[in-house]
Amino acid sequence: MLKSIDPLLNADVLYALRAMGHGDDLVICDTNFPADSVARQTTLGRLLRIDGVTASRAARAILSVLPLDSFVENPARRMEIVGKAGEVPAVQAEVQAEIDATQRRPRFYGCFVFKKGVIPPDPE
Amino acid sequence: MLKSIDPLLNADVLYALRAMGHGDDLVICDTNFPADSVARQTTLGRLLRIDGVTASRAARAILSVLPLDSFVENPARRMEIVGKAGEVPAVQAEVQAEIDATQRRPRFYGCFVFKKGVIPPDPE
Repeated sequence: MLKSIDPLLNADVLYALRAMGHGDDLVICDTNFPADSVARQTTLGRLLRIDGVTASRAARAILSVLPLDSFVENPARRMEIVGKAGEVPAVQAEVQAEIDATQRRPRFYGCFVFKKGVIPPDPE
Repeated sequence: MLKSIDPLLNADVLYALRAMGHGDDLVICDTNFPADSVARQTTLGRLLRIDGVTASRAARAILSVLPLDSFVENPARRMEIVGKAGEVPAVQAEVQAEIDATQRRPRFYGCFVFKKGVIPPDPE
């Protein structure tokens, strides 16, 4: 464990988050998603694991260090329910709440794909 | 870059710090040290780079996340000057100041090898 860093962020996850630049996407998926096979086709090329917690708990850990991209309209996207594109299930509302808590303004349009943004230098 | 994490801690360094367990040692060395050849013989097996800063600045970044080991007497050690074992050069005094700032109590016996410690669970 490290000081001031959420213990859910293991070494592999921390490596990937720090290596990402702004505009890069991070996918948070559930246990039914074909995570391993899809991850093999990504830029990183391998699956990162955060096991045994809810999506919102994982999102909270990730968003404690990951800035969302302010250069695009939708830096957080979600998977739509088949045949019910407008419906927001509980798991997505919970992740949205974590995003809102980070952004400090309510936006209710999705989750599950995070695009990494920039942290500007401190003002002179 | 990531929020709340010193930008000197690059992806490779963050990976190693998070992968370390308590009792593991981290060596901070200067540009004259045979870093690459020695690093190849360590547990990690490769050199981690933090370039262009002083040892004390690197120590500050590392100690912002790394807990020092409370189970051993000397969790921070230094390289002795040849023929002047008791002399503490400026670079070591500066690193000691960073350690003192983290520990919040003055101890003046060294630097440069950090043994990773534990972060206990929160009290019930």
